[in-house]
Amino acid sequence: MNDKIRCIREKMKLLNLQGLIISNPVNIRYILGLDVEGTILITDKENIFITDARYIEEVNEFLTINDEFVIYDAKDLSDVDNYYFFQDCENVGFEEYYVTFSNYENMIRKYRIKSFEETDKIVEKIRMIKDEEEIKNIEKACKITDKCFNYLINYIKIGMTEREIAFEIEKFFIENGADSLAFETIVASGENSSKPHARPTDKVIRYGDPITIDFGAKVNGYSSDMTRTVFAGCILDEIRELYNLVLKVQQKSIKCMKEGIPCKTVARDAENELYIYNYSLIHALGHGVGLDVHELPIISHNSKFSFKENMVVTSEPGIYIPGKYGIRIEDTLRIGRLEPEVLTKSSKEIIIVDKK
Amino acid sequence: MNDKIRCIREKMKLLNLQGLIISNPVNIRYILGLDVEGTILITDKENIFITDARYIEEVNEFLTINDEFVIYDAKDLSDVDNYYFFQDCENVGFEEYYVTFSNYENMIRKYRIKSFEETDKIVEKIRMIKDEEEIKNIEKACKITDKCFNYLINYIKIGMTEREIAFEIEKFFIENGADSLAFETIVASGENSSKPHARPTDKVIRYGDPITIDFGAKVNGYSSDMTRTVFAGCILDEIRELYNLVLKVQQKSIKCMKEGIPCKTVARDAENELYIYNYSLIHALGHGVGLDVHELPIISHNSKFSFKENMVVTSEPGIYIPGKYGIRIEDTLRIGRLEPEVLTKSSKEIIIVDKK
Repeated sequence: MNDKIRCIREKMKLLNLQGLIISNPVNIRYILGLDVEGTILITDKENIFITDARYIEEVNEFLTINDEFVIYDAKDLSDVDNYYFFQDCENVGFEEYYVTFSNYENMIRKYRIKSFEETDKIVEKIRMIKDEEEIKNIEKACKITDKCFNYLINYIKIGMTEREIAFEIEKFFIENGADSLAFETIVASGENSSKPHARPTDKVIRYGDPITIDFGAKVNGYSSDMTRTVFAGCILDEIRELYNLVLKVQQKSIKCMKEGIPCKTVARDAENELYIYNYSLIHALGHGVGLDVHELPIISHNSKFSFKENMVVTSEPGIYIPGKYGIRIEDTLRIGRLEPEVLTKSSKEIIIVDKK
Repeated sequence: MNDKIRCIREKMKLLNLQGLIISNPVNIRYILGLDVEGTILITDKENIFITDARYIEEVNEFLTINDEFVIYDAKDLSDVDNYYFFQDCENVGFEEYYVTFSNYENMIRKYRIKSFEETDKIVEKIRMIKDEEEIKNIEKACKITDKCFNYLINYIKIGMTEREIAFEIEKFFIENGADSLAFETIVASGENSSKPHARPTDKVIRYGDPITIDFGAKVNGYSSDMTRTVFAGCILDEIRELYNLVLKVQQKSIKCMKEGIPCKTVARDAENELYIYNYSLIHALGHGVGLDVHELPIISHNSKFSFKENMVVTSEPGIYIPGKYGIRIEDTLRIGRLEPEVLTKSSKEIIIVDKK
C-alpha cells in the first residue's frame, strides 16, 4: 500500500475512525505525489481517489498497483455509489480546518455519514516528518536560494526599487530550475524593513538602507525559506549592534533545535534573550517547511510540538523598530538525530552591497 | 455610511438578518477598499472592523467618518465585548462558502450566536455590478493586457519555450504599471493547447504550432482576462476553419450579452452553435471578472443569473481536439444599457507570429 496511506490508517485506528475524507489539495499532493484535483476517500475496504476527466489519465499512469488506489471519475459515480463508500463506517473523519461549512453539509448528505468527526490536522501532523525524497527536494530548493543570494549580493545597487529586486529573484529562480517562488518575496528597505510582512514597493534603495530579503524557491512542490538583511553602501553602528544580537539569538536557537526538545522551550528562550535587551519577538520564532511554506510545527511560545528527527523548520528571529528599520535572519534546517543540519548556507556575516 | 455597507444592509433586511459576519478577504477588500486582514461585523447598531496591530494605522488613515466604521484591535476585545456585538440580533449571517467548519464553530462560541444563517454569497452577488471606479480599474488592466499582446506578436519566436513567454508576460505587466498577474498565465502550444487549463511547460514552440495565451493583469486589485490563439510560422487549413468557427461563436455570444437576457440562454446558444459542427463546449462560456478573476455570474447552461448593466464578464468559447490542438478566444466586456462594451481590444484576426 502507498506508504503515506499506511501511516494515515495507523493514526485513524488510534482515533477510532473507520473512514476519512481528504479534501485539502496539499494533503492530496502529499499522498499521491501528484498535483491533481480531486478528493481522497479512505474507507474500511479501499483507498479511493475521485477526480475528473482532466486528470484520470495522468493519475492512472502515475500510480502503481502497490499504491492500492481505486480511481473514479466523479461523473461516473451515482448517488448509490456514493452512499456505499462509507456504509460500514461508524465514524468518518474530515478536515475541519479546510472544509467549508457548505462542503461539510454537502459531504454529510452525499455520503450519508452517520458520525462525522473532526481530525485535528491528522495528515498535516504526519507531514511534519519528512522522508528522504522530500528532504532532497527541500535541499534543492535551498541550494537555488543560496545561489540566488550570492547573485543578489553583486546585483543590488543603490537606486534600484524593491520591486525590481523582487522580480530579479523570481527570474533567477525560474532560470535556475525552480518551479516557482515558494511565496511572494519580501524585499523591504529602509523604514519598510520595520514591517515583518512588507510587500515590495516602488521605493528606491538609498545609501544606508538595511534591506531585508525574505525569499524561497519551490522544487517539485517543496519550499525553501530564507531571510537575510543586507546593507546598502554602509551600516550604522547602532544597526550593527542590532544585527549581531539577532544573529546571536538565531544561532543559539538553531543549536537548541534537537530531537525531544519542546518547540516552545526554544521559542521562549529566544524571546527571553531579546527581552533582556528590551526587544520583543513580535512573530513566531519559526515554522515547519515542506509542501506549504508555513506548516506544522509552529515554533512559538505556546507550541504543543516537540522537535523530531527529519522535521524541516525555520528559525527566524527579528527586531523591528517601527518607522525606522528592522533586522531578520532566517534559515531552513533539518532536525537531525544529534545536531540540526542547516540547509540554507548563505553567509550571515554583515554584508554591505554596492560598496563604493 | 459606506456605500457598499448600505447596499449589504438592504439585502440583509430582505433576508431577515440583523447581523452579518464577513470573513472572505476579497469581500473585505471590496467593502473597505483596502487590502488588510481582519473580520467585518455588521450588527444592528454598528459597522465594525476587527483587525490587528499591523493594520490599525492604515485603516484609520484610510477610512473617513462617512464610512461609519468602528475599528478594533482584536487583542483589545474581551470575551464580554465579543458577546455584546450581536446580543440583540436574532439571526446572524455568515459566509458558508468561505468559512471553514472549524471557524464556524469558533464564531458561534465567541459571539454567542443564537441563530447562524447561511447567506448564499450575499456580498459576491452585490459585487456582480461594478461602480465607476471599479470599471476604471478593470479598463486599465485590459489596456495593459492589450499592450502586452501587441508586444508579444513581435516577441514570440519559434524555438522559445512556453515558460519563457509566460515569464515575459509577467515582466511586461510589472514594467507597465500592473500590480501583478491576475492569474497564472496559460501559454499552451501545439498539442498542449488541447488542454484548456494547461500550465506553461519547457516545451519549445515549433513551426505550425497554435499557441493559446490566456492572461490578465491586476490593477488596484481588479483583473482583466483575455485569450488569444496565434500561430507559429503558418496555419493549417483545418485549423483556420476551426479558428473562424470559434471566432464566430464568440462574436455572436458577445452581441447577445444584454441587460435582462439570462446568462444560460447565451451559453446554450453558443453550445448549440458548436454542437451543429459536432464540437462540445467543455467549460463554461464565461464568468464575471473583478477583484476575483473568476467571480459571479457564471455564464453556463445552468446559470441562474441574468445580464445587468455594469456587470463585467468574459466570453471564451473554445474547441479542443485531444492530443492535437485547441483554439480559444476570450474577451473581457462590460454589459451596457444597450450594447456590450468590449474592454480587451486586441485583434482577433488570424495572427501568424515569426513568419519568415
